[in-house]
Amino acid sequence: MAHYKLAFLGFGNVGKALAGLLIRKRLELEHEYDLTFSVTGITTSRHGQAVNLDGIDLEQALKVSDFSNLSKSPSESDVYQFIDQTNADVLFENTPVNYQTGQPAVDHLKYALERNMHAITANKGPVAHAYRMLTDLASQKERKFYFESTVMDGAPIFSLFRDTLPAARLRSFRGILNSTTNMILTRMEQGESFDQAVSYCQKIGIAETDPSGDVDGWDAAVKVAVLVNVLMDFRLKPEDVDRQGIREITQDDVSRALKDGKRWKLVCTAVRDGERIRTKVAPEMVTSNSILYTVDGTSSIVIFETDVLSSLSIVEANPSPHTTAYGLLADFLNAVKS
Amino acid sequence: MAHYKLAFLGFGNVGKALAGLLIRKRLELEHEYDLTFSVTGITTSRHGQAVNLDGIDLEQALKVSDFSNLSKSPSESDVYQFIDQTNADVLFENTPVNYQTGQPAVDHLKYALERNMHAITANKGPVAHAYRMLTDLASQKERKFYFESTVMDGAPIFSLFRDTLPAARLRSFRGILNSTTNMILTRMEQGESFDQAVSYCQKIGIAETDPSGDVDGWDAAVKVAVLVNVLMDFRLKPEDVDRQGIREITQDDVSRALKDGKRWKLVCTAVRDGERIRTKVAPEMVTSNSILYTVDGTSSIVIFETDVLSSLSIVEANPSPHTTAYGLLADFLNAVKS
Repeated sequence: MAHYKLAFLGFGNVGKALAGLLIRKRLELEHEYDLTFSVTGITTSRHGQAVNLDGIDLEQALKVSDFSNLSKSPSESDVYQFIDQTNADVLFENTPVNYQTGQPAVDHLKYALERNMHAITANKGPVAHAYRMLTDLASQKERKFYFESTVMDGAPIFSLFRDTLPAARLRSFRGILNSTTNMILTRMEQGESFDQAVSYCQKIGIAETDPSGDVDGWDAAVKVAVLVNVLMDFRLKPEDVDRQGIREITQDDVSRALKDGKRWKLVCTAVRDGERIRTKVAPEMVTSNSILYTVDGTSSIVIFETDVLSSLSIVEANPSPHTTAYGLLADFLNAVKS
Repeated sequence: MAHYKLAFLGFGNVGKALAGLLIRKRLELEHEYDLTFSVTGITTSRHGQAVNLDGIDLEQALKVSDFSNLSKSPSESDVYQFIDQTNADVLFENTPVNYQTGQPAVDHLKYALERNMHAITANKGPVAHAYRMLTDLASQKERKFYFESTVMDGAPIFSLFRDTLPAARLRSFRGILNSTTNMILTRMEQGESFDQAVSYCQKIGIAETDPSGDVDGWDAAVKVAVLVNVLMDFRLKPEDVDRQGIREITQDDVSRALKDGKRWKLVCTAVRDGERIRTKVAPEMVTSNSILYTVDGTSSIVIFETDVLSSLSIVEANPSPHTTAYGLLADFLNAVKS
């Protein structure tokens, strides 16, 4: 029976959902995956941090508002000291995304890998900005840098290509990858104004106070960069994506389209073109014959064209922090199986 | 560099497409998967058989109509002798399906596994009727019994659950799994009668002379049984599926539905219900908000509900014998990697 020490960097909705999932799956992991785990560290931005090499009580961690009560470590330390103190086998990095540079998450993941930890993240920033460096480092350390939850929550996208599509060459993809804009467009179809729809998304917790990361297409562009870097083996930065958000789509545009049996969607595309890859994020009007038409609310889709399967789509509906947490759990189980 | 000897049992459209794919991917397999292969045997129902331990010339095999010219083996033998003579590491079994018993493919695959070959098939029959026995035998022999191409051609379904969804419990699925009936219904929407649509499917090679296997829902029921046996760990025979085909759907039904923005689809479902699993194949009218609505022609879809991802769909469009062949290649590469 293998035992793994886990550390959590960030303990927001996703971190908490992962803790809940680990509790729920504890016996199953023991019986079917022959492994046990303990959480030796949790650090949060606003509620302090806990380090306990005997294992933090996860049920308690889900209840308290001050983590220092759970800690056996004397005092607050910086993230690097925290990573060292946890003595973990696996670091789960779940801090907010930095679209521009991926920092400081890049440095934190690098530090964990250098200390022979598997580095697992739901944060797109480090993948968009430092995929090659972190993957090479992981490989050199015989550890894994995995990030299944960065695109389409916990739906298998990276593991799909890694483990189920050997010898397949990705030629292009097309999809709806940003839940917030998709929900905004869906609400506008129901008669809300853009601002009302944004407020709704803020209320249900899928849009930030400043919604521009979603609305201006940055989140989608970062996901395009992630997919292109990882699945098409091509270095592309988010700012290289031809990007247009949904601010110019009016309520009137949306309802006129709907009357014609069409819907506006923020569509991501990437297409190999010789040595280049053309990428784009832009609103598109799709007809009811398009599979994109049926992907509404917070659902997402990606359609892959490969040299061996001409059209393979993955669709995820009803995502939540629990779905994202599952991607992290899957990464953990896949990292330690190999 | 590992070398694998491959044997082909059946060399119809799928076997030929696999041969073509192996030729096309030969260098890639050598450089990226560190493996080489030779085909030491091909047996066909109507064009004789070839055995050559030095490797059959695959380009030639795609051209000839009498395989005995390619053979170094003295005379025609039965399938068991053929399997022995090939001395193969991997048997690709691609003979026509027997919905009722899965035979004789079950016995052929069993024989290959007993001789320490990986057994790979695109034939649903043996999976529906002997999944547990063949999988247990494979495990005992430290070989693999893989069958990715039996449901949704080469799209990853079984490897998805095997390799990308650890600790996920499948609660239900729903989908369109039979291309022929889906194409018939699509053609009927375009104004053809049932008989015309069936003729069209026969002409393009996706329906048999006797189309009842598709039209009466047998093929779909066998696929339901395969998915339930493999992914839900429950023994179910094709005849246990509550099965209704599309014979009672008239051209009039189809066009009236279409006028209302709806479409008839032959829908497969399986739902856990306590200790049982309720399964069904039946025509259903779906609306344009349903993702099933957009799956037309020979495309297929399955929507999985698991305890960790509430709705994950896989959609495959534009299948062909090449797609099925890819599933066999993927099985081969996945079998030998582990």
